[in-house]
Amino acid sequence: MKQRTSVNRRIIYAKRPIGEPGLECFKLVEAPIGEVGAQQILVRNDFVSVDPYIRMRMEEKDSYAPVMKLGDIVVGRTIAEVIESRHPEFHPGDWVVGRLGWQDYSVAAAAELQKIDPATAPLTAYLGCLGSTGVTAWIGLVEIGRPKNGETVVVSAAAGAVGSVAGQLAKRRGCRAVGIAGGAAKCKVVVDEFGFDACVDYKAARFAGDLRAAVGDGVDIYFENVGGAILDTVLPLLKHGARIPLCGMVSQYNATAPYGVHNLREIFNHRVTMRGFVISDHRDLWPAATKELEEAYAAGKLRSRETIAEGLENAPQAFIDMLKGGNIGKQIVRIRPRAGG
Amino acid sequence: MKQRTSVNRRIIYAKRPIGEPGLECFKLVEAPIGEVGAQQILVRNDFVSVDPYIRMRMEEKDSYAPVMKLGDIVVGRTIAEVIESRHPEFHPGDWVVGRLGWQDYSVAAAAELQKIDPATAPLTAYLGCLGSTGVTAWIGLVEIGRPKNGETVVVSAAAGAVGSVAGQLAKRRGCRAVGIAGGAAKCKVVVDEFGFDACVDYKAARFAGDLRAAVGDGVDIYFENVGGAILDTVLPLLKHGARIPLCGMVSQYNATAPYGVHNLREIFNHRVTMRGFVISDHRDLWPAATKELEEAYAAGKLRSRETIAEGLENAPQAFIDMLKGGNIGKQIVRIRPRAGG
Repeated sequence: MKQRTSVNRRIIYAKRPIGEPGLECFKLVEAPIGEVGAQQILVRNDFVSVDPYIRMRMEEKDSYAPVMKLGDIVVGRTIAEVIESRHPEFHPGDWVVGRLGWQDYSVAAAAELQKIDPATAPLTAYLGCLGSTGVTAWIGLVEIGRPKNGETVVVSAAAGAVGSVAGQLAKRRGCRAVGIAGGAAKCKVVVDEFGFDACVDYKAARFAGDLRAAVGDGVDIYFENVGGAILDTVLPLLKHGARIPLCGMVSQYNATAPYGVHNLREIFNHRVTMRGFVISDHRDLWPAATKELEEAYAAGKLRSRETIAEGLENAPQAFIDMLKGGNIGKQIVRIRPRAGG
Repeated sequence: MKQRTSVNRRIIYAKRPIGEPGLECFKLVEAPIGEVGAQQILVRNDFVSVDPYIRMRMEEKDSYAPVMKLGDIVVGRTIAEVIESRHPEFHPGDWVVGRLGWQDYSVAAAAELQKIDPATAPLTAYLGCLGSTGVTAWIGLVEIGRPKNGETVVVSAAAGAVGSVAGQLAKRRGCRAVGIAGGAAKCKVVVDEFGFDACVDYKAARFAGDLRAAVGDGVDIYFENVGGAILDTVLPLLKHGARIPLCGMVSQYNATAPYGVHNLREIFNHRVTMRGFVISDHRDLWPAATKELEEAYAAGKLRSRETIAEGLENAPQAFIDMLKGGNIGKQIVRIRPRAGG
């Protein structure tokens, strides 16, 4: 049996943010590890995923998903190892992924856990390009965007976890992929590592002109992660019949006064389809998405980057930084250095 | 042969507007009636349709349709009578509809004309609920909106030509129809004549609250004709999976500084699909649309209203007024009092 303490550290949601969240919105507490009941499994969480959607769940009213109440454990998918099992299908040493939250240990039901194979890919890939991040990119690009060979696909937050995969999936379908990212360093990664045809720096003064030049005769698909002023800049570049898979609007999550989008007439002018989506509405497509992602990964054709923060206690800062674009690729927190195994 | 003068009055596009167009943007000129060549048909235009899309065609650059050049005859569909024909399928006295523009007479090819039957419906209905207006409402509601029995459909510009038909088509499908219109008089027509379940006055101070109350548990389809602040008010009322057929944004056509829409996050939160459309992209659906509209009309189940201005020379003022909501139902201009026939 793996090393185990008797105390479970958890980070709870402590204070509603107004605008940008601060460290005071989170609190580290200790609690006993619960009893492992019949059919239950005790796991130790090794990595937790830190994602923009958490900011939406910190709001007071109805958002795209159930909100967190003050005192709740902060939500997030983790990679965990089974420590003790009272369920016949799980055994100590098995690796699993689940929505187990920001904490050291979890007592879970079998339905909450999905086994993963650490021999196939590094564990953290199951939080990123082989996990919900990759599936999000696939559903947005393939199901909502419907890419066709030769089309031009623009991806915002292209250096981020979802955007980097969306661009690579577009390239696999014969599209021209143009990224939008903040700063020259991220743009270089988007082109050199993720294989986009071009990447435009939205922080540069010449952003609008640079983007226009990069997309040539216009945009067929705009995979949207950020919203706000960047959306306004892309809208006039859309072609007739363009599609906008709307994956998120991270530029707006911390905004106390949301940005007003002025160029929506382009959606009418160019018969554009803009469609919001979340992967939980498309569970039927997960197997197809996962199959392509795993095959591409195994063939070395799916590149990913991670930014890993060390220590559960540093998850709040990692989250705050991620919302401001501090990460490249998937933001993950290693809950603690592994001991023993 | 019908009475015929030798002079053809035309209204040409004379000056680009900045913001709201004025009478100086139009000029009435006289020209000879052209020769009727082989296979051509001479028609006298009796009614011309005056529509918001003309404002978009007055812009300088690419819009949803080809722009008008200064000196062009102003575009518009007309109801016309055949005066002289050198084509075997058309005969003097036939009634036709075509995109023949703001002028007394037109020399047209057969492909430009569609015969209509004045015994089936009043001539002007072929510019409105039985013409492109009705087809626009049908394609937006049925094809883009995909209404289901029991859903709630909100229609902006509900007293207008397209909106009034969209709401009636929604009712035919078992939906609850809620209109948005400007002023109590229009709202009364929307409910009493067009049979909407409710209509909310967007000029009233309590608009947002009134609309929230009228839609109950939320909006499944928002048939959008106006954009701007009204769109911002409807967005937070959308249900999961709502659809927004985007037919136009008339509130923005005269705007020198377009309104910034703040609530687009709702499109993501509620997995909404917003889709711009124009009927020329959906010609395959015109027969089905026309069939339902004609059957409903014949059965007395499709109500329409028209605002008719008298005299070709008054078409510019009718257009200017229509953009500001001066009309109820379809805005039409009677080109001149009929003489003889």
